[in-house]
Amino acid sequence: MPTLQAPTPASSVPVDLTSPLDTFARRHLGSDAAMIAQMLQVVGYESMDALINATVPSSIRLKQPLKVGREQGESETLAQLKALADKNQIYKTFIGRGYYDTIVPPVILRNILENPGWYTQYTPYQAEISQGRLEALLNFQTMVTDLTGLPLANSSLLDEGTAAAEAMSMCVSVHDGARKTFVVDRRCHAQTIEVVRTRARSMGIDCQVVDVIRGGALKAGEIAGVLVQYPATDGAIVDYSDLADALHQAGVLLVVAVDLLALTLITPPGEFGADIAVGSSQRFGVPMGFGGPHAAFMSTKTDYARKMPGRLAGLSKDVAGNPALRLTLQTREQHIRRERATSNICTAQVLLAIMASMYAVYHGPEGLKQIATRIHGLACTFAEGAKSLGHRVSSDAYFDTVCVQLSGLDQQTVLDRARQAHINLGTCDNGIVVAFSETTTLDDLNTLLWLLETPDHVWRRLDHAAVVPHQSWNTRRTPFLTHPVFNSYHTEHELLRYIKRLESRDLSLCHSMIPLGSCTMKLNATTQMIPVTWPSFGKLHPFAPKEQWKGYAEMFATLEKWLADITGFAATWLQPNAGSQGEYAGLLMIRAYHESRKDTKRDICLIPTSAHGTNPASAVIAGFKVVTVACDSEGNIDLSDLQTKAEAHKDQLAALMITYPSTHGVFEETVRTACDLIHASGGLVYMDGANMNAQVGLTSPGTIGADVCHLNLHKTFCIPHGGGGPGMGPICMTAELGQFIPAANQQVGFGSADDLKNSQTPMNVSAAYYGSASILPISYAYIAMMGSDGLKRATELAILNANYMAKRLEPHYPILYRGKNGTCAHEFILDCRAFERTAGVKVEDIAKRLMDYGFHAPTMSWPVPGTLMVEPTESESKAELDRLVDALVLIRQEIGAIEAGQLDRTDNPLKNAPHTAAMATSDEWSHAYPRSQAAYPAPWLRNWKFWPPVARIDNVYGDRNLVCTCPPLSSYA
Amino acid sequence: MPTLQAPTPASSVPVDLTSPLDTFARRHLGSDAAMIAQMLQVVGYESMDALINATVPSSIRLKQPLKVGREQGESETLAQLKALADKNQIYKTFIGRGYYDTIVPPVILRNILENPGWYTQYTPYQAEISQGRLEALLNFQTMVTDLTGLPLANSSLLDEGTAAAEAMSMCVSVHDGARKTFVVDRRCHAQTIEVVRTRARSMGIDCQVVDVIRGGALKAGEIAGVLVQYPATDGAIVDYSDLADALHQAGVLLVVAVDLLALTLITPPGEFGADIAVGSSQRFGVPMGFGGPHAAFMSTKTDYARKMPGRLAGLSKDVAGNPALRLTLQTREQHIRRERATSNICTAQVLLAIMASMYAVYHGPEGLKQIATRIHGLACTFAEGAKSLGHRVSSDAYFDTVCVQLSGLDQQTVLDRARQAHINLGTCDNGIVVAFSETTTLDDLNTLLWLLETPDHVWRRLDHAAVVPHQSWNTRRTPFLTHPVFNSYHTEHELLRYIKRLESRDLSLCHSMIPLGSCTMKLNATTQMIPVTWPSFGKLHPFAPKEQWKGYAEMFATLEKWLADITGFAATWLQPNAGSQGEYAGLLMIRAYHESRKDTKRDICLIPTSAHGTNPASAVIAGFKVVTVACDSEGNIDLSDLQTKAEAHKDQLAALMITYPSTHGVFEETVRTACDLIHASGGLVYMDGANMNAQVGLTSPGTIGADVCHLNLHKTFCIPHGGGGPGMGPICMTAELGQFIPAANQQVGFGSADDLKNSQTPMNVSAAYYGSASILPISYAYIAMMGSDGLKRATELAILNANYMAKRLEPHYPILYRGKNGTCAHEFILDCRAFERTAGVKVEDIAKRLMDYGFHAPTMSWPVPGTLMVEPTESESKAELDRLVDALVLIRQEIGAIEAGQLDRTDNPLKNAPHTAAMATSDEWSHAYPRSQAAYPAPWLRNWKFWPPVARIDNVYGDRNLVCTCPPLSSYA
Repeated sequence: MPTLQAPTPASSVPVDLTSPLDTFARRHLGSDAAMIAQMLQVVGYESMDALINATVPSSIRLKQPLKVGREQGESETLAQLKALADKNQIYKTFIGRGYYDTIVPPVILRNILENPGWYTQYTPYQAEISQGRLEALLNFQTMVTDLTGLPLANSSLLDEGTAAAEAMSMCVSVHDGARKTFVVDRRCHAQTIEVVRTRARSMGIDCQVVDVIRGGALKAGEIAGVLVQYPATDGAIVDYSDLADALHQAGVLLVVAVDLLALTLITPPGEFGADIAVGSSQRFGVPMGFGGPHAAFMSTKTDYARKMPGRLAGLSKDVAGNPALRLTLQTREQHIRRERATSNICTAQVLLAIMASMYAVYHGPEGLKQIATRIHGLACTFAEGAKSLGHRVSSDAYFDTVCVQLSGLDQQTVLDRARQAHINLGTCDNGIVVAFSETTTLDDLNTLLWLLETPDHVWRRLDHAAVVPHQSWNTRRTPFLTHPVFNSYHTEHELLRYIKRLESRDLSLCHSMIPLGSCTMKLNATTQMIPVTWPSFGKLHPFAPKEQWKGYAEMFATLEKWLADITGFAATWLQPNAGSQGEYAGLLMIRAYHESRKDTKRDICLIPTSAHGTNPASAVIAGFKVVTVACDSEGNIDLSDLQTKAEAHKDQLAALMITYPSTHGVFEETVRTACDLIHASGGLVYMDGANMNAQVGLTSPGTIGADVCHLNLHKTFCIPHGGGGPGMGPICMTAELGQFIPAANQQVGFGSADDLKNSQTPMNVSAAYYGSASILPISYAYIAMMGSDGLKRATELAILNANYMAKRLEPHYPILYRGKNGTCAHEFILDCRAFERTAGVKVEDIAKRLMDYGFHAPTMSWPVPGTLMVEPTESESKAELDRLVDALVLIRQEIGAIEAGQLDRTDNPLKNAPHTAAMATSDEWSHAYPRSQAAYPAPWLRNWKFWPPVARIDNVYGDRNLVCTCPPLSSYA
Repeated sequence: MPTLQAPTPASSVPVDLTSPLDTFARRHLGSDAAMIAQMLQVVGYESMDALINATVPSSIRLKQPLKVGREQGESETLAQLKALADKNQIYKTFIGRGYYDTIVPPVILRNILENPGWYTQYTPYQAEISQGRLEALLNFQTMVTDLTGLPLANSSLLDEGTAAAEAMSMCVSVHDGARKTFVVDRRCHAQTIEVVRTRARSMGIDCQVVDVIRGGALKAGEIAGVLVQYPATDGAIVDYSDLADALHQAGVLLVVAVDLLALTLITPPGEFGADIAVGSSQRFGVPMGFGGPHAAFMSTKTDYARKMPGRLAGLSKDVAGNPALRLTLQTREQHIRRERATSNICTAQVLLAIMASMYAVYHGPEGLKQIATRIHGLACTFAEGAKSLGHRVSSDAYFDTVCVQLSGLDQQTVLDRARQAHINLGTCDNGIVVAFSETTTLDDLNTLLWLLETPDHVWRRLDHAAVVPHQSWNTRRTPFLTHPVFNSYHTEHELLRYIKRLESRDLSLCHSMIPLGSCTMKLNATTQMIPVTWPSFGKLHPFAPKEQWKGYAEMFATLEKWLADITGFAATWLQPNAGSQGEYAGLLMIRAYHESRKDTKRDICLIPTSAHGTNPASAVIAGFKVVTVACDSEGNIDLSDLQTKAEAHKDQLAALMITYPSTHGVFEETVRTACDLIHASGGLVYMDGANMNAQVGLTSPGTIGADVCHLNLHKTFCIPHGGGGPGMGPICMTAELGQFIPAANQQVGFGSADDLKNSQTPMNVSAAYYGSASILPISYAYIAMMGSDGLKRATELAILNANYMAKRLEPHYPILYRGKNGTCAHEFILDCRAFERTAGVKVEDIAKRLMDYGFHAPTMSWPVPGTLMVEPTESESKAELDRLVDALVLIRQEIGAIEAGQLDRTDNPLKNAPHTAAMATSDEWSHAYPRSQAAYPAPWLRNWKFWPPVARIDNVYGDRNLVCTCPPLSSYA
């Protein structure tokens, strides 16, 4: 390292010219060395190493540093990602099959998808400070119900494939498990069939892929439901009304996978007898993104409300009687139902659902119809053109997709010409399939017809064209999107203000820390987000030929390697597009392992009582029987109970699912013993990655002894929560399990209907092979910019921050569960149970009161009812931690005042929280405490006050009076 | 147009497949056909044509439609701009000379520059709802004062060149005009010298460009000031302290043009005796953008506070005694001083000043020092390397710029190698000049030294390097940026929240319409803004060789053509980077015209009393004598007075400056006569483009009879106001005047010091030839997406909207001045003067009360004191217009209640407006009206309430107690 000497040295410290100056770790980590020293002093350790050594058992510490490399500068990383993106080739895409190019209205792109005010929000569990996105989700549900003609819709599922799988599960559940056959029409999208077959197999459902219309020898009495695609994957619009009648007579449910845009023109499934509709809202202004993320949906009849998976936004009222939105019927959800769950879906695709809903708001019913009509017009013109060139078109009834049987021309010639013209087509037997989209131009149409020229027929370009669209049996007659919200914001200013108005009602990371235990709400840095909206990542179809996504492939490979290194494993599978999907996929790997050894009796999955609710749900979906393992009084797994259960089920033991550090925020000392116990009994260990933020660089699932784990990239690896999704849950595993990762056949999607017969063990948990590919640059950038050292420092600081807060809060609240040296991991639990007795204060009152202080509550009543679990993460500054501590201490003092009788037990700031501006400025003030205490209980609020838009919401009212679509405006009067 | 027939027609309306579906006009125009019909009915016209015919005199209507073409789709336009951008070639730039590549911190890029919450704000005249950007501007001023070591700084000037010109004017003004020589050191940046010489010539100042250090035969007694560059344009750091002493003894002011980043390391000018410092803050995180926009600055001694041009943010207090920010000492400004003004600057560069200030906030003093030290280290390493290769380095004392005298190698060889390596260098006699920046890497350094290899010396690449920086006489000893604001927000979360907190204090177009008469606050659409932050527009140096900016050149050519067509002229000059600059440039053209005819006595400029205050200021700066022309009682130019004045000054008459429609919002019928009168007297007509939004597509300056006009692209052509800049003021003119547009010599900047002697009539009003080039895509996109037809419809709707509002308000407020058919143009004036007598209500009270309704006030007391001038623009929906009308009617009712004695004359909602949340929630409420009336006087406020962060501000207090830098935190206690 040559150091050049300048004439007169100003200081003896040489300046490093080698490293970038725009390093990221110091921007990501909330505290610098001085603040860290202060916090260590409070915690009582003289160094970070001392704290970590006291906290993380030495037996599981990494022996070597991570191999991720040095930290890269922010601009260096952006340049690197740009170079990768530029290796992708963006062809014009006419592949269709569930993915269509679309125009993201720029006002939505910039003010939602690129706006931290929207993408850093959490799931709207704290409804009073989530009214903006709840309204957008209600719009989404209204859009889906209107378009599908079914009265009840959830606010998004992960993708169309999993939505179909969920529908299958729901059909079985509607029949109380008495019917275990599910029939899938072979003209469904291939990837949907694959995902459904995977789920059917693991759930023990007999899935039959047949030609539903031409019929087959199916035993109606065993069939729970039938799935058809509308329009079919080859573009044909099939009349399913007779089928629906026949099925209903046999007590079979009809599930229709639909294209929302087509439904603006053709009869909605609800009008021809469908019981369930599923589909993707991708083409409503959400980039294809090489497969995701997009918001899928499900709608159904009101009777099935309690059988429907996924989140449901609904109207209720607040204590002032004003309309207020919230998530409704939450008792349906997996985290409540655990091993009785019929779905494991948790994270949804909120951000994308909001985008799709805003697309409908912006275009309105007429605008959507215009888009659909133009696409249909292009398809018609193309079909007529193809006929005029001597080819045959398979169907007379189609919306956007035309299947051409070639004549006088072989398929390969067309495909070669297409490649030359940078066009991607779909194929069918001796033909091609062309799906039109919002982005198709007249030029494209001319090029497509040029592809079909034969020696005998030359295409004469159209310079101008207009077309009168087809009429068919199924023209839609019923109006849709008649609510004012879809008819008021059609100019950019109006939509901008609507978006901003909704944004202003929600608290996000732009306001303050969101200290949710187990959710790891850390910084979602801008540099990580910038590549996500580059067209070179966004405009790729998931079934584009491999040579077009070399940039993605390179990024995937690096990311797979990094994640494997971080988890201490050998292999990574990026497909699972949510944490719950990762759990499911990981358990499928374990299942495949046992099956490969013909060890097919192994179907018991041990799960500690402290586990996340999705664990048992995923186990059930994966076909396991759940046996629970007790926890001791310290919240740790009861080793003796584990041993008993493992031995009792020795021959059937498939897996143990554990979370580490424990869901109680403790690095259990005995974790290796537990893993050994399971292995000794022939089982494998699945590790839930929820708490990975306490492991990275210090220990790893592999080191601890697990065989497979999932990673919540939307927690530890910086993908923003998006107000409740997207998530991303890749799995990492041993080399032994890695051999079960299915190979991708991306060339024509991963498996066409005809290939399916050969596929004995379908294993695809998402509709696209790489899940939500377009958000992977976020985690890639995070890891690259932190480097091995930065990642480790992040984990250390996350642990210090939690211990610092716990130490400061200790005099005021009992802290539940700690490690043997009295330290916690990256999160800790505040026990609030006693206050109900001493002051009539429930933990919910504290959560709501925190809103008055400008904070989102920590995780409430989980894993222990009546507690708050706080996870500060490494990204929050000491100043921010202190502010939250101060708020909690001030609230404790308010509780103290109730205990002391200085505040009334029922009319106090906690019980009446949150206080809206309307309350605090009301002409009459009848409370026993002053307005200033209601609204400005801490000094910083004079500097920045977030006003909750509604007061405490009545949950029971909403569950009893189910309103899940936009109510008439009069209800707001 | 072949229409393909499909089997069975569904409807008889054919679908157009030729045009894009994502058309823009319907998104830009606030009202659709149905709303327009409703508004026309209220106004009393049966069609838009009828209204326009009644409003715009037929004598000046365009005979032919515009030639801008059809409206392009939004994605089509983005694709077109992308194609243009891709024609620019981005070389690594080491040219320096005032422009340096920089890293825009992504959190600032996305949350300020790409955030409509910041870029759609207006100038902070209504200070109570502008506290966020005023704080950012106070930070900017603090940053400049700290770094320059001079106690008072303004909150931005247009560019370094104009800042130097302003300093010259200030020096002359300080000497009360008694000294009229200004000396410029020849080692100043060439473009600065050019701009100063242009201004000197027009103002009759003798500008001498000399070698200041080696001296010359200058008569000290005539010299007002001396300008030097620090570091000099060739990179040398010169010790000016002896010069400063000598100048002060002679009563001469020393102006130092500085590099802010260098000042983190070297002695600030305030410490060696400078009286004024000027410079650009571009390299503080603002893209080069091919020349602009960036924020220039000026700092000076407190004694000169009232001589300093530009806006000044200052601290005052509100009625509650809380600290509150506002623009201070406004009486200094041109719109007050008119023909007594010594500067015409109006619009500043607020958005860019805010970005630069946030860059300093994010990096803090230590971070800035690190950046500067690394750059200096690179320069040192390069200099040593060059020496080791046998070359000579001109100076031992430099910061970032090294001038290398080549040896054994000719300049052209180096330049050829550089081109090959995609590198741009500066040049000097037989040598090269290399300026380093924040983005330079070790790789770049190696490449640069490779360029300097000779047959005898080969460069051995450095793989790692560290350097001990130079020490010199001028190492900075004094601390800077010690205020907490520069030491608290160094992590991304902290800065994000600081940015969002400030944003939350300001009202922008994201909240509601901003109905400022004469300011045309219309939609700034996202599609227009997206290209602005593309690196292919942002990372170009203004002196890059012509072959590297072919995309820009093509865009400029098209835009010039379009603007000429729209104005009815033959030529366009894009250089003026603000409206006032356009006025100045246009008047220079008129001057050049008279001079070219040897008609040098013509120095009288007629200006109606109703003109914008910048008109007379610009006329004075351009060297004209102002003679005012009276207006009649209708607000129109008094034709007989015009005739009298024109004839009286027949031989000296140079120009008439007019605004059309008049500043009173009326299409004067006699405008052609007025133009004819002037032409008959040998003068030319300058048209102020402020009201162009009422002309486009209906009439034009050329049609009306003007010879030259400027366009406020930041009004009519959608460049956002940015909270008070950037603006952009190109001029359009007749072919006869067009011949005076100076040619660009972009190859080495436009003119080097040596070329200057040959330049007889310098005419450069901005430092970069194309002014603020990087924001021109905004106007380009607007025009392309609207097309000829859309532009005309916009004008029509702007006029209808104004007439609709006027009609609805007529029963409540007197409307001043209208055209002969009782219609107004695109804006109208509400007379509020009577209320002072009837209710003790001033127009300011109405303006402040509007804040409680969530609105920014219309233009207040201009052009008529005691009135409000409302300009709705075409982008606001009828619903939004109605909401503002409702607010004004409700306020009128409140005034009525005062008049009727139902409300107290002093304690009423108007006098106490705006009401903050702190006021409305205070424990005591002593007012004679309820809180609900204070805070929620209209129903929509329950849906979305913007809370003014401070109460009514005490203007007098702030002017008397000048605080223009960040106060100690204790003052906020």
